[in-house]
Amino acid sequence: MSESKLTSLSALGEFGLIDFLTKDLSSTHKSTLKGIGDDAAVIKPSAGKVMLVSKDLLIENIHFDLMYTPLKHLGYKAAIVNFSDMAAMNALPKQILVGLGVSSKFSAEALNEIYNGIKKACEIYKVDFVGGDTTSSAHGLFISVTVIGEADKKRIAYRSGAKPNDLLCVTGDLGAAYMGLLILEREKKVFQANPDMQPDMEAHDHVLEKQLKPEARVDIVKALEEKEILPTSMIDISDGLASETLHLCKASGTGCVIYEEKIPIDQQTYDLAKEFGIVPSVAALNGGEDYELLFTISQEDYEKIKTLDDISVIGYMTEENEGKQVISNDNQSFELKAQGWDALKKREV
Amino acid sequence: MSESKLTSLSALGEFGLIDFLTKDLSSTHKSTLKGIGDDAAVIKPSAGKVMLVSKDLLIENIHFDLMYTPLKHLGYKAAIVNFSDMAAMNALPKQILVGLGVSSKFSAEALNEIYNGIKKACEIYKVDFVGGDTTSSAHGLFISVTVIGEADKKRIAYRSGAKPNDLLCVTGDLGAAYMGLLILEREKKVFQANPDMQPDMEAHDHVLEKQLKPEARVDIVKALEEKEILPTSMIDISDGLASETLHLCKASGTGCVIYEEKIPIDQQTYDLAKEFGIVPSVAALNGGEDYELLFTISQEDYEKIKTLDDISVIGYMTEENEGKQVISNDNQSFELKAQGWDALKKREV
Repeated sequence: MSESKLTSLSALGEFGLIDFLTKDLSSTHKSTLKGIGDDAAVIKPSAGKVMLVSKDLLIENIHFDLMYTPLKHLGYKAAIVNFSDMAAMNALPKQILVGLGVSSKFSAEALNEIYNGIKKACEIYKVDFVGGDTTSSAHGLFISVTVIGEADKKRIAYRSGAKPNDLLCVTGDLGAAYMGLLILEREKKVFQANPDMQPDMEAHDHVLEKQLKPEARVDIVKALEEKEILPTSMIDISDGLASETLHLCKASGTGCVIYEEKIPIDQQTYDLAKEFGIVPSVAALNGGEDYELLFTISQEDYEKIKTLDDISVIGYMTEENEGKQVISNDNQSFELKAQGWDALKKREV
Repeated sequence: MSESKLTSLSALGEFGLIDFLTKDLSSTHKSTLKGIGDDAAVIKPSAGKVMLVSKDLLIENIHFDLMYTPLKHLGYKAAIVNFSDMAAMNALPKQILVGLGVSSKFSAEALNEIYNGIKKACEIYKVDFVGGDTTSSAHGLFISVTVIGEADKKRIAYRSGAKPNDLLCVTGDLGAAYMGLLILEREKKVFQANPDMQPDMEAHDHVLEKQLKPEARVDIVKALEEKEILPTSMIDISDGLASETLHLCKASGTGCVIYEEKIPIDQQTYDLAKEFGIVPSVAALNGGEDYELLFTISQEDYEKIKTLDDISVIGYMTEENEGKQVISNDNQSFELKAQGWDALKKREV
């Protein structure tokens, strides 16, 4: 796309821009009675289901850096982090609404790239894009996504249902998104020092994908239902395993034991952590942005959970007065502490 | 409140701040199964009802100026503009979620003022505050509100249902919010030139209230249902009467006739428009932010609508090929054009 053909936002105006961005949107769910184009979307919940609603904000230079984040990936990720909130309730995402605040430096085509990423995520996850709001911002870009989901009331997994002796499980592998961020930040500094340097991105495909194009574990929600496993509590990992485990403990009134050796870490993450001088399990405990699911199940479901791929049992819940512990590889006990990424402090990498 | 007692956001951290802001929130609707405190709110729609969802963004220095906007009023207005989107569908707001992006210059107490305004609006409109997201922003303040509403499917009023000969109706009076903005901008300039000057706010109570503390016409939604009047189309007036009327015409495939003399303008708005050298009806047509309802009804409902207070019939819909006309007080016909406030252009007042 050549620079000269880019369309300024003021040339289109608010309503022209909305038409431009949403012209090819259509809804696929029967429950979506009205999508984009009126003062609100209209949704008819499926019989017997309850609805879930969540929202997440992504803000330039807080949650993402446009220097190394392709706009389409950014749109995809903005949708995924919201879909992940539905998965975290053991629910399926069904509709999203997207609010964009953009400074005038963006072209309509640039915004369309963000929209294309969101649309791609909607297509893959079978979610209807039903509404939103686009407005100017004095500084920078931000994306506000609202997701609506659906679940059987009896299958919703809150943070508060864990009981002592329940098994603590996690999907996928942890720490990779954080390693991806460290790689991107390193390459950014190399580029700033010498723009002619070629980025060293080879052999980092897994961690870069986890950072730039994460997925929501909606597949696990479906697999758990198929196997008739009802998590007693669940949360998604956005701030790091340690922080999220402490949320489950606090909401459920329990303690916990996590075994360091059980924490799933990909070889690429492991090698990179070593390269950066970070203990790999510390990266997994505090890294954040993995968007894997952390959940507890009754011990009775242990045989069933073993039949599912991509789930690790990393510990168990205890009585609250037994504390929150990590048992290290050399069999020492440490207190579990959250040093995860906190969106109220600026990224310091 | 003394400066020395203010609490910095970084001292509280993200989770501490959320606890601080939401500690006294409780839900009142039976439909709210789970409010704040998990990965999503859970809502059980009332039997036979459909759900509506909308979101609106308010951004510092685009939608509001903190120099003359009290934070509590800002929170109240952020909720109201979203409630108004539900009224615009002929639906009732039931739940909201609030996302805040804040720079570190704000104290926890300042954010609490915003929350207090939102809570006040929720209390008055009987809406449950069920979730949200608070994060830092690199620059300035923005508020992203998502509202969820409920309606009988048969009573939803879309923009697209108007027919030729339907009567065009508007609630309340128009142009006042714009005059309020002009007053505030004028006093800001006076203050900037001479901080010792006392603001000249007397005798402007109506226009200032419409600008700083608008209301959503949920009362009209209820009154229309009581009188068994079903609007054939409806929208709320955020961008000005002209712009919104054109939206109804475009979505419905009609033309329209508006009589200038029928446009409801408060005496205070009228006098101020004259003082600012603006034709009062132009302020009403293009001013924006009135959050009144604009709707069409079948002519059969004329006798019924006359029994309701605070509604003016200002014209009627025509065949599309008859165009969009304003008939002036001296009986000339002009083409209706939208020159309303467009959130993609910065405010120029």
